[in-house]
Amino acid sequence: MRIGILTGGGDCPGLNAVIRAVVRKGVTGHGDEVVGFRDGWRGVMDGDSVPLELASVRGILPRGGTVLGTSRTNPYAVDGGPERVLASLERLGIEALIPIGGEDTLGVATRLGEAGVRVVGVPKTIDNDLDATDYTFGFDTAVGVAMEAIDRLHTTGDSHHRTLVVEVMGRHAGWIALHAGMAGGASVVLVPEHPFDVDAVVEHCRHRFASGFSPIVVVSEGAKPANGDLVLSTGAKDAFGHVRLGGIGPALAALIEERTGREARAVVLGHIQRGGTPSPFDRVLATRFGLAAVAAVHDGATGIMVALRGTDIVRVRLSEATAQLKLVPPERYAEAEVFFG
Amino acid sequence: MRIGILTGGGDCPGLNAVIRAVVRKGVTGHGDEVVGFRDGWRGVMDGDSVPLELASVRGILPRGGTVLGTSRTNPYAVDGGPERVLASLERLGIEALIPIGGEDTLGVATRLGEAGVRVVGVPKTIDNDLDATDYTFGFDTAVGVAMEAIDRLHTTGDSHHRTLVVEVMGRHAGWIALHAGMAGGASVVLVPEHPFDVDAVVEHCRHRFASGFSPIVVVSEGAKPANGDLVLSTGAKDAFGHVRLGGIGPALAALIEERTGREARAVVLGHIQRGGTPSPFDRVLATRFGLAAVAAVHDGATGIMVALRGTDIVRVRLSEATAQLKLVPPERYAEAEVFFG
Amino acid sequence: MRIGILTGGGDCPGLNAVIRAVVRKGVTGHGDEVVGFRDGWRGVMDGDSVPLELASVRGILPRGGTVLGTSRTNPYAVDGGPERVLASLERLGIEALIPIGGEDTLGVATRLGEAGVRVVGVPKTIDNDLDATDYTFGFDTAVGVAMEAIDRLHTTGDSHHRTLVVEVMGRHAGWIALHAGMAGGASVVLVPEHPFDVDAVVEHCRHRFASGFSPIVVVSEGAKPANGDLVLSTGAKDAFGHVRLGGIGPALAALIEERTGREARAVVLGHIQRGGTPSPFDRVLATRFGLAAVAAVHDGATGIMVALRGTDIVRVRLSEATAQLKLVPPERYAEAEVFFG
Amino acid sequence: MRIGILTGGGDCPGLNAVIRAVVRKGVTGHGDEVVGFRDGWRGVMDGDSVPLELASVRGILPRGGTVLGTSRTNPYAVDGGPERVLASLERLGIEALIPIGGEDTLGVATRLGEAGVRVVGVPKTIDNDLDATDYTFGFDTAVGVAMEAIDRLHTTGDSHHRTLVVEVMGRHAGWIALHAGMAGGASVVLVPEHPFDVDAVVEHCRHRFASGFSPIVVVSEGAKPANGDLVLSTGAKDAFGHVRLGGIGPALAALIEERTGREARAVVLGHIQRGGTPSPFDRVLATRFGLAAVAAVHDGATGIMVALRGTDIVRVRLSEATAQLKLVPPERYAEAEVFFG
Repeated sequence: MRIGILTGGGDCPGLNAVIRAVVRKGVTGHGDEVVGFRDGWRGVMDGDSVPLELASVRGILPRGGTVLGTSRTNPYAVDGGPERVLASLERLGIEALIPIGGEDTLGVATRLGEAGVRVVGVPKTIDNDLDATDYTFGFDTAVGVAMEAIDRLHTTGDSHHRTLVVEVMGRHAGWIALHAGMAGGASVVLVPEHPFDVDAVVEHCRHRFASGFSPIVVVSEGAKPANGDLVLSTGAKDAFGHVRLGGIGPALAALIEERTGREARAVVLGHIQRGGTPSPFDRVLATRFGLAAVAAVHDGATGIMVALRGTDIVRVRLSEATAQLKLVPPERYAEAEVFFG
Repeated sequence: MRIGILTGGGDCPGLNAVIRAVVRKGVTGHGDEVVGFRDGWRGVMDGDSVPLELASVRGILPRGGTVLGTSRTNPYAVDGGPERVLASLERLGIEALIPIGGEDTLGVATRLGEAGVRVVGVPKTIDNDLDATDYTFGFDTAVGVAMEAIDRLHTTGDSHHRTLVVEVMGRHAGWIALHAGMAGGASVVLVPEHPFDVDAVVEHCRHRFASGFSPIVVVSEGAKPANGDLVLSTGAKDAFGHVRLGGIGPALAALIEERTGREARAVVLGHIQRGGTPSPFDRVLATRFGLAAVAAVHDGATGIMVALRGTDIVRVRLSEATAQLKLVPPERYAEAEVFFG
Repeated sequence: MRIGILTGGGDCPGLNAVIRAVVRKGVTGHGDEVVGFRDGWRGVMDGDSVPLELASVRGILPRGGTVLGTSRTNPYAVDGGPERVLASLERLGIEALIPIGGEDTLGVATRLGEAGVRVVGVPKTIDNDLDATDYTFGFDTAVGVAMEAIDRLHTTGDSHHRTLVVEVMGRHAGWIALHAGMAGGASVVLVPEHPFDVDAVVEHCRHRFASGFSPIVVVSEGAKPANGDLVLSTGAKDAFGHVRLGGIGPALAALIEERTGREARAVVLGHIQRGGTPSPFDRVLATRFGLAAVAAVHDGATGIMVALRGTDIVRVRLSEATAQLKLVPPERYAEAEVFFG
Repeated sequence: MRIGILTGGGDCPGLNAVIRAVVRKGVTGHGDEVVGFRDGWRGVMDGDSVPLELASVRGILPRGGTVLGTSRTNPYAVDGGPERVLASLERLGIEALIPIGGEDTLGVATRLGEAGVRVVGVPKTIDNDLDATDYTFGFDTAVGVAMEAIDRLHTTGDSHHRTLVVEVMGRHAGWIALHAGMAGGASVVLVPEHPFDVDAVVEHCRHRFASGFSPIVVVSEGAKPANGDLVLSTGAKDAFGHVRLGGIGPALAALIEERTGREARAVVLGHIQRGGTPSPFDRVLATRFGLAAVAAVHDGATGIMVALRGTDIVRVRLSEATAQLKLVPPERYAEAEVFFG
């Protein structure tokens, strides 16, 4: 068979592991030809492709990012986009397509599947917020980067008797904050799903100081206070009387400093959470996703994506898979609260 | 309530995370008193205990090993052992016991449960070979240590055009070898469950050399050749005409060197796989196990152990949990074989 | 002898290694009593101290931060401060003082030495900008954290074809940027000592893109453009017509994005550079500094600090040691420029 | 100019950093052509070479090993070897040669230099035992790998109350053991330069147990007991009545177990010490060595090698550089002894 593969959306540790697995399994196991499209759907629209042979994927397993490049191009948002995709697949003789990506990328895949293209998706979201799979690759690596940062910040916080606020990824779902905070021994974890009470946060910090240690506050970039905005009683405010100091992390640090009377500092981890070599968990998961995608293609499956359930790789309908976000449920958040303060 | 806790058998990254979670949840969440027994069942028999307060568990989350110490003592193998255990629990006013351990430790727990002690076990095996739970903590850390070693060995192997054999833990089950080998891009993975064909191993190594790279062979300590022993055609043999060069790793390296005509070296990872700070996955899993054990105790459960199923922590009967080993199934091994050579 | 020890200024990986070495060498080697002051000179002024025995320093070698706490308190800036210091030392029977710190902390030590206190300083600056020593501990660890971040960012940059700007510590001296940039394979390194030409930076980025890879720009927090401020031709400006987007890193990223027409992102590493476990180099250096400080005390030395020259630990006059900053010399910067672009 | 480059002897983290620096500096800075020889002197003899352009060295900085391959071939030990080397250099138009290697590789370079070839050597020994330079690259990485292993083993040792013996590289010089042991907080460090007293080692282990912690013994592979062989009073012996259990590490563990009456285990780190990504220190040192070698070539220097003195890269005569080993001096060993026990 002739199989196309592409990576779309934000990059994520493990993408290369999927690509390698698809090529190894396709070429060695089935005698397939594998074609890589550059920069996600952009490359499919433009017919910008490269043949992927065994030699093309040697040594890429431990490397972060994607050797194929990525973009956020959506053919359905481009005039004549879908037609160009179909023409391109036709011209290159692609019999099946394996798109690796998140909601947007797989949304395109869903529609192409409905249009008759044989598609088997591989889910990718570093935020782990896809309902149809227990975990997505990249998440464990991101949690690891954040946890190591927290490990480091404990000692500097304790030495200076100051609060440290760590802002991690997670616009809509707080999985990275929850897991990194639990793994790192954070004093407070704030996630988008549970608007936080500023007074309670300050109280946890005070309590931690009282125990002789310094608080670490882990906050998702998308976390929000329960009642309005963060407001400092003193200091610079914007035209609306609100303090806007970059993201939630720095804003929260400023507020905690004011309210506890002790120094607070913020660290915004940013892009280091998504780059670099994948963790063992992510390398194995990504590899198994790649293998399962090729198996699905050869089984004649289409309109599905591979997913993790327990220790098994299963197939789920693409249409259902991307239907809703997986948020941190109240009971998981409550479970973590015993460690606050 | 007054809860006793102990750690038995080989140490494992994550034990301290369980202990901390039990104490935090018990003391803060329920107002429990928690008593730690030293060195596993030995400490229970001897009434060798220490009160565990919040301060006792500060800072232990990221630390490997167990602050309680461990041993392989089995009260049922000691004259009057079970009676001493019961007397000790009575005297110390222990209302429930949380033993953290593997087959042996939980086997004792099972019998004590049948004898009327309220027991809620927490499974621990670095080999991940317990059938009742998707994963055990410590396993992910061990795989990570092995994977990093493999990552390092690739470059030294390629530079010298030599085979490197990595012997990892796994007496009966090959999970560490399978996952580390898949994550590290091994050329061959050998596990106890699937006796290996020496000729095939040599052939994979030759094939790898032919591609311009050097083979990495990952082998479980308990892996065995399918037909008899490893025999060198030349060189020193023991009284039985068999070559015994330490473990399977060095023996295999000697044989591969002889058969491929290129240098081969073995690395036996040993105890570095089980020491040191737990991975984020293991810290979260161990913490959740500890929380769930306390919850189970307060629910009045007994004779059970906590386990991971998908993303949920569930309860399973202790008697069933330790009934059989979880081995690498043929389909998981076959899945990995596409990467051989 | 009765020896006092304190840590002042910003924390730094290796402080605990110094403390441990002083205690081990003092107590075991010489039968000294060692007294630790809490939070730098603040603790000396207040007589806030703790006896340090062998058991007090067990297990602290691999830990970041300082078990003694730190502050920026300067007794000479406090009314009656120096008198309180002298009275405190008198009352506690301190015969010699080992202050560990940077310019400020050692400046106080210098003056106390001139006032008759026996002082042997240990230099500490994570920025490595002390002229009298080849290296200070903490620097190698900070470079390592920054380098690992750069390693991670390469793959995410290449996948998205975007520039990544990494802001590292270094207000006056660019050592961390220089070493981390050289170790991480940065496309441009900007340091405070060499005001940069914005056009040249942009040109290097373009050149890097042209080679098919994405640029990483490493910039010290104290680096400045050669001609005026960073100015965007479009977009939000402050009241003075200048763009102020947090530190130099985000400002530079915004400008590079505008000028290259490709996305750019900034990462500000912040406090994770100074926390956490020290690198092997720093553990050994800090340990040897501690040992040498005790030896100097017992040799009757005073008014000196220990320093690294080549592989030797030597003694230098405190007055000279803190006289001037060690900046990145033009030839070292020029050496790195061959890698730009 | 047309410059040849090769890597000989055992591989070492940082070799690729040297190669990259030579190519970047040569090609970009001077317009040189750089030719890489495969597998050390073997490739020079056979004229087995590859042009090294900027693209050839992209991405190799963080990679361990050597992209050129290596061997232990010595042309002076091969019939007609030197003639073949000279003919090969002639035919390929090589005007200067940069050999990267240890005693053997640079010994060949010395003789070729005397025979009129322009040679500028780059020193490489993971054991750090070259007298003419403060440090060699690769050493810091090896110490880091060993230190991380020791960090891990502390917790497993303490949990089981057992001694752990860690055997590290160092046949003639104990630098890795000394630095890793000091950085890791070992209870005993044994090096080849100072034959050890078995009774003292056992006494240190007992003392450590008495303090409530478990001993870590770090031993160079080349360390030897002061009086004869290691002899167990019981158990299997070889034909000579001596116990031979693999290397010194396992033998020592067996003996300590017998003499202390507590379990002891050995870990032989082996090849993981020399593979994998170089530490920041090593990447910077290797890069600077490469830059300095090209500068020396263009200055017309020959018969020299580059070396580190303090923070400077200097030039030393090849003939002197390889004249004698740098051993751990008694005062450095004595310095470490305060931590024993």
